[in-house]
Amino acid sequence: MIVDGKHLKSVWLEGNTVRMINQSLLPHRFEIFESHDHQRTTRAVLNYVVRGAGAVAAAAAYAVAQAVIEAPEKEFDAYVETAISELLGITTSYMVVHAVERVALKVKKAGSVEKAKLAARKEAEAVADEDANACARIGELGAELVGDGYRVFTHGSSGWLASTDWGTSLSPVYTAKRQGKNVFVWVGEGRPALYGARLVAWELKEEAIPFSLVTDTSTGYFMARGDIDVVIVGCERITRSGDVVARIGTYEKAVLAKAHKIPFYVAAPLAAVDWEAAGPKAIEAEERGEEEILWIQGRDEVNALHNVTTAPDGTHARNPVFDVTPAKYVSGIITEKGILKPDKLKNHLPGADT
Amino acid sequence: MIVDGKHLKSVWLEGNTVRMINQSLLPHRFEIFESHDHQRTTRAVLNYVVRGAGAVAAAAAYAVAQAVIEAPEKEFDAYVETAISELLGITTSYMVVHAVERVALKVKKAGSVEKAKLAARKEAEAVADEDANACARIGELGAELVGDGYRVFTHGSSGWLASTDWGTSLSPVYTAKRQGKNVFVWVGEGRPALYGARLVAWELKEEAIPFSLVTDTSTGYFMARGDIDVVIVGCERITRSGDVVARIGTYEKAVLAKAHKIPFYVAAPLAAVDWEAAGPKAIEAEERGEEEILWIQGRDEVNALHNVTTAPDGTHARNPVFDVTPAKYVSGIITEKGILKPDKLKNHLPGADT
Repeated sequence: MIVDGKHLKSVWLEGNTVRMINQSLLPHRFEIFESHDHQRTTRAVLNYVVRGAGAVAAAAAYAVAQAVIEAPEKEFDAYVETAISELLGITTSYMVVHAVERVALKVKKAGSVEKAKLAARKEAEAVADEDANACARIGELGAELVGDGYRVFTHGSSGWLASTDWGTSLSPVYTAKRQGKNVFVWVGEGRPALYGARLVAWELKEEAIPFSLVTDTSTGYFMARGDIDVVIVGCERITRSGDVVARIGTYEKAVLAKAHKIPFYVAAPLAAVDWEAAGPKAIEAEERGEEEILWIQGRDEVNALHNVTTAPDGTHARNPVFDVTPAKYVSGIITEKGILKPDKLKNHLPGADT
Repeated sequence: MIVDGKHLKSVWLEGNTVRMINQSLLPHRFEIFESHDHQRTTRAVLNYVVRGAGAVAAAAAYAVAQAVIEAPEKEFDAYVETAISELLGITTSYMVVHAVERVALKVKKAGSVEKAKLAARKEAEAVADEDANACARIGELGAELVGDGYRVFTHGSSGWLASTDWGTSLSPVYTAKRQGKNVFVWVGEGRPALYGARLVAWELKEEAIPFSLVTDTSTGYFMARGDIDVVIVGCERITRSGDVVARIGTYEKAVLAKAHKIPFYVAAPLAAVDWEAAGPKAIEAEERGEEEILWIQGRDEVNALHNVTTAPDGTHARNPVFDVTPAKYVSGIITEKGILKPDKLKNHLPGADT
């Protein structure tokens, strides 16, 4: 991704230090967060220093590698086991669980502590690189969906910052721009976390792509006016039948897109497919605390940060984080292996690939 | 409406003073705003001290009456004319224009300055009373749509505060509660102005009706779960063919309700019907400045008010205020003359009534 004109990843490993763009401070401040041990990396995931399925998966893989590298030889297994269970305790993200298990498996098979340390680092790097490469490929393939002059609507935040590099939903946009196409992006605010306003707007500004921020309730208005050519969103997880778990509100955008005959694409690496889950009912909905809805952080005119609330004292809120978009609303899934119809996803079951 | 256990109107006239609940301070502070002259009343409309189609129509009618009462005899016509054009210059709300023209017509027909002063006051009171009575009747008729144990979803803010009394969308809820039914209300936040979070939550709290605040993007989620029994919204204006101009996002809720086979009702007095407009295309969309999206006012933990922004500097936003819901999405319009199918509205054209 481009930050201040320079290429940067959202999370990377240098020596035994994990470095990441501190997303919890954006767009108010740009800082690189450094973590010298696995516990600090784990806390960074918990505190949304790093967020987005792909970026968190890479950070989690690095955290396991850090734990393996740190582990005292005498209590190696117990140390690594504790680190892994702490990490899994703070997230149910499919890509994260998958990434952690990948590294853990290599450690288990290594045969010696020394080999385990090398294997863990190598596998964590592979997780991060595969994510970046898959996202770059998603951009190349997805760019054909973004015509010259297109106005793309995106919801949630699955740009650069949400992956190791390139992002998912915005990767086709970034690639289309590099191909010389004019592209405009409608950015939904994305209450409650306002990742659209905070992060997507920041990314697009750094990439010099024109965009407009819009409230979460005006999508239908702009669709009805004919102002949106295509919807591209990211996701958290996909079932093998092509149902999509994504940022709350994605389902609504899909229903609206169908009503207005606007193509609705989901961009995600195949690593986001949960091959064991079939059908929208297979997925548990997660709700978070109401504070995230009741309190908003922003900066005032002199750049001081404040947490403010707008609702009367005693107000309760419900805060579902994800929703499920059934496959019938999905025009296609932009993966690194092609733009797939939801019902064709199962042809790419690991091992089924030819 | 009930405030702190006592009955109160949102706007009323005492002597020559217009008093109103200062909605721009809610829910942070409760204050009665007093206006001794028509210019201050006009500014109160401009500054959202009073808002909501019915409440603003009453305030505007009172402002005309104040201008007529204040007007020096020598330049009576010019003074009143200026006051009216200033008032009409700040709003395109159909109910407001209609209310101002009603009072203006009585003044014109009065014959003498003295009679004009009496007629203006009387007509302004009639505008306010008719609104309150229509809203009370909307509550009585609409309560039949709110079964015991119902979970009502509302969007926008058309409760008590938005009318002289009772409100539109929430009047059936308040009436149902007085009939002894258990009612629960889902309150959409209503970005950008957050009137749901600020005003509807405040009203419901004062009325001791249980509710939950939800983000604007989670309606589809709760509909898909079967958590919403009926949607009732207010509006700004209705065409004679039953198309509804309402708070941005209303259209989306209507499309979603239809997709989930949930009844979608609009509550409005017949005064909101623009008999000259037919079809959704007859209505011009209004967009406001981007500041309303980019800046949010709220109170911090020690009750200090701050304006904060979450987007990076240089971000632009589009801020459509209303959208149009075509009649085909509307299950019925709850008016003071009955719950009407959109295509039956035209039977109630003024003069056609029997």
